[in-house]
Amino acid sequence: MSDQVKYILSEADIPKFWYNINADSPLPPPPVLNPLTLEPITPEFLNVLFPMDLILQEVSTERYIEIPKEVRDIYRIWRPTPLLRARRLEIALDTPAHIYYKHEGTSPSGSHKPNTAIAQAFYNKASGVKAMTTETGAGQWGTALSIGCHYFDLDLEVYMVKVSYNQKPYRRVYMETFGASVFASPTDRTEFGRQVLAKDPDNPGSLGMAISEAVEVAANSGGKKKYGLGSVLNHVLLHQTVIGEESLKQMDMAGEYPDVVIGCVGGGSNFGGIALPFLRGNLTNGKKTRLIGVEPTASPSLTRGIYAFDYGDTAKMAPVVKMHTLGHDFIPAPIHAGGLRYHGMSPLLCNFYNAGYMEAIAVHQLGTFEAAIQFAQCEGIIPAPESAHAIRVVIDEALDAKEKGEKRVILFNLSGHGHFDMAAYDAYFSGKLQDYELPQEEIDRARVTLPKVSMPA
Amino acid sequence: MSDQVKYILSEADIPKFWYNINADSPLPPPPVLNPLTLEPITPEFLNVLFPMDLILQEVSTERYIEIPKEVRDIYRIWRPTPLLRARRLEIALDTPAHIYYKHEGTSPSGSHKPNTAIAQAFYNKASGVKAMTTETGAGQWGTALSIGCHYFDLDLEVYMVKVSYNQKPYRRVYMETFGASVFASPTDRTEFGRQVLAKDPDNPGSLGMAISEAVEVAANSGGKKKYGLGSVLNHVLLHQTVIGEESLKQMDMAGEYPDVVIGCVGGGSNFGGIALPFLRGNLTNGKKTRLIGVEPTASPSLTRGIYAFDYGDTAKMAPVVKMHTLGHDFIPAPIHAGGLRYHGMSPLLCNFYNAGYMEAIAVHQLGTFEAAIQFAQCEGIIPAPESAHAIRVVIDEALDAKEKGEKRVILFNLSGHGHFDMAAYDAYFSGKLQDYELPQEEIDRARVTLPKVSMPA
Repeated sequence: MSDQVKYILSEADIPKFWYNINADSPLPPPPVLNPLTLEPITPEFLNVLFPMDLILQEVSTERYIEIPKEVRDIYRIWRPTPLLRARRLEIALDTPAHIYYKHEGTSPSGSHKPNTAIAQAFYNKASGVKAMTTETGAGQWGTALSIGCHYFDLDLEVYMVKVSYNQKPYRRVYMETFGASVFASPTDRTEFGRQVLAKDPDNPGSLGMAISEAVEVAANSGGKKKYGLGSVLNHVLLHQTVIGEESLKQMDMAGEYPDVVIGCVGGGSNFGGIALPFLRGNLTNGKKTRLIGVEPTASPSLTRGIYAFDYGDTAKMAPVVKMHTLGHDFIPAPIHAGGLRYHGMSPLLCNFYNAGYMEAIAVHQLGTFEAAIQFAQCEGIIPAPESAHAIRVVIDEALDAKEKGEKRVILFNLSGHGHFDMAAYDAYFSGKLQDYELPQEEIDRARVTLPKVSMPA
Repeated sequence: MSDQVKYILSEADIPKFWYNINADSPLPPPPVLNPLTLEPITPEFLNVLFPMDLILQEVSTERYIEIPKEVRDIYRIWRPTPLLRARRLEIALDTPAHIYYKHEGTSPSGSHKPNTAIAQAFYNKASGVKAMTTETGAGQWGTALSIGCHYFDLDLEVYMVKVSYNQKPYRRVYMETFGASVFASPTDRTEFGRQVLAKDPDNPGSLGMAISEAVEVAANSGGKKKYGLGSVLNHVLLHQTVIGEESLKQMDMAGEYPDVVIGCVGGGSNFGGIALPFLRGNLTNGKKTRLIGVEPTASPSLTRGIYAFDYGDTAKMAPVVKMHTLGHDFIPAPIHAGGLRYHGMSPLLCNFYNAGYMEAIAVHQLGTFEAAIQFAQCEGIIPAPESAHAIRVVIDEALDAKEKGEKRVILFNLSGHGHFDMAAYDAYFSGKLQDYELPQEEIDRARVTLPKVSMPA
């Protein structure tokens, strides 16, 4: 083990392949259903929303999928990202644990999201699409896709949850800098948006509604516009595996292998990105790394959601997938980790979680900010509130290792920086934040809203 | 020349010495004067504000000054910073020029400022000081010193220009995250602040006033508190030479040597940091690199200021130095590059500029934002409005090289990212920004306010 704190790869180490866990998974993937018929979906139906290359990746069982040169050429701007050892945090905690973090906040948009945004923009451009549509909550995904679409000369419409649009004008400006058109959702640009506004002109919007608007615009564009999703789907997690592949090389440089890999989970893409290459080690190479997804108690889909088929969006236009869900019309409490406020979860991760291949922990908001500030003061980086969920559990694991007198090698994904989340830190320092525990009635109520699927669940 | 876009050094390449240009300079430095007597200042007087180690660095003629291990150990968190080649910008400009940039925005505070903040905090701690005071305009320097003081367990009082305090609450929160106390200047905490408020309770403050407050608090603390300045002084530029020393190694990795080195100038520290090691090459090694400092037309101290002795602050409490000045009571137009709104300039740089060893160019605000957006769209990094001044001239140089059909190797310092400046970008996109040309009467008026110094000017 060296004395370094930074483990830096060269451009030549940018992965040439994405890793597809489905090639090594012992678990059959549940089908994806058409939201109208609730029967298995056809590629033709999906092709209304996504280019065929991405649909093929969604269902591929090929182990390694080559990353196009054009995508790697843009990855070069910020990849490989650094792996750092949090020595000052280790000292502050007085723990025998070794804490490493992969710093995905070094990307152009400040998070891991461009790993898939660049790829999605590339495949859309290659298929002849002229424009993309998407939703964004906190703004990380919208920013990333703005950058992706700019590089491949595609127009982009971003449907941004209205409450965030008003609270975070700087994220909007960031997207506009890269040429995107940003609309406060619900808008009057879609049938669904108009329906919502007719009932409640002041509706603050939700991620589920914004997805519905972006999907509707793409579906009605006659093939000119397609839709991009920033998490949940297999191809998104596939693109994010560059994080874990680089981390494997960097842990090797450090002369260690993680006992635990930790990431926050909203739709599952940053956690999947770092964890799946280590799950490969567990599945095929006799490794026993624990994999922990961390979610908010306010939106606890893995730990408390129902494992069932559900719609991906509020308007029931997106595909129906089997996942841990809080119900497609779930409105989460106003926690500041906007990227974790989704009702569902990656079906791929849900399958592994259900079968015991990974763990999940739900944590409270105040504890995440406490952890974030301890990390920031030690490591000099203010984390995004989403990433702070992972840090909470990292610190708890390091303290557990101390109590048990164990050396434990912990790796986590610092999925993004918090430069656009300082209002959340301000609210925390001012004592304005609170913890939320989702009432059981809400979950019981969600059960009734699930689609009646005849497939074996 | 390689095909790479990133030139990355290892931790072992973090410089072990700061470079002191005074060892190689053919120009005698003008004296520094006591603001009360206008006679040459004594170390004892300076020691009220600064620890003796920094005063010795201020006047040292030693060529290389060793960086303490404790400082290098914190530099490791983000140093060495990357050097990147802006290939996409080159292509967009269709220029034969090669454009390289040193990315100092990768630091914990998002700019080059921690290079000296960490060092200043270390030397203050080592001298037995318990707390530091400082001013900040846009917030970059205050953030950096907050981090420095946190690491060396020093309290910090930041006097933040009131208009910025109100416009940029997130910078304040950033500083508070690292434990600093931040006050909107003018405050009622100082005699000077109370005088200002008595005349005008709504005074929006200025950098000169905030310096006066921070200096007053330190001077009246009986040695418990000392003052830290983020630019202008020799020891600050000395600490910043790590930028240029790393750049030299990285240009060597790229197999090139710059024909031109460019940086923005407010007090001169980021430009000095990158340029002085290349000036050494000009002075001692027969190199002929052009060195260009870029300033705003709204605050054009080098290009239009008077080269004379002047006070460093509004209240005439800071030392009197010979520099290009717009007058110590100058109130600049409200441009968004807050870090460039200082009335004076590093005396070291002024001496070189006056003797023809460097060039200076003043640029307009709208052109800097235009350049910033072109750079962001190509390179995926939104620059600080200050750094955008350098980028404006980089693009102009690259276009000039194209017109002349010359290969020209351009290196510039990307002194900081613009994540906390999105309001400025928003104003630009909304057409709310304007250009400012300083009226000649203002400069003529400044001449009358200069101290009557009997030293040869």
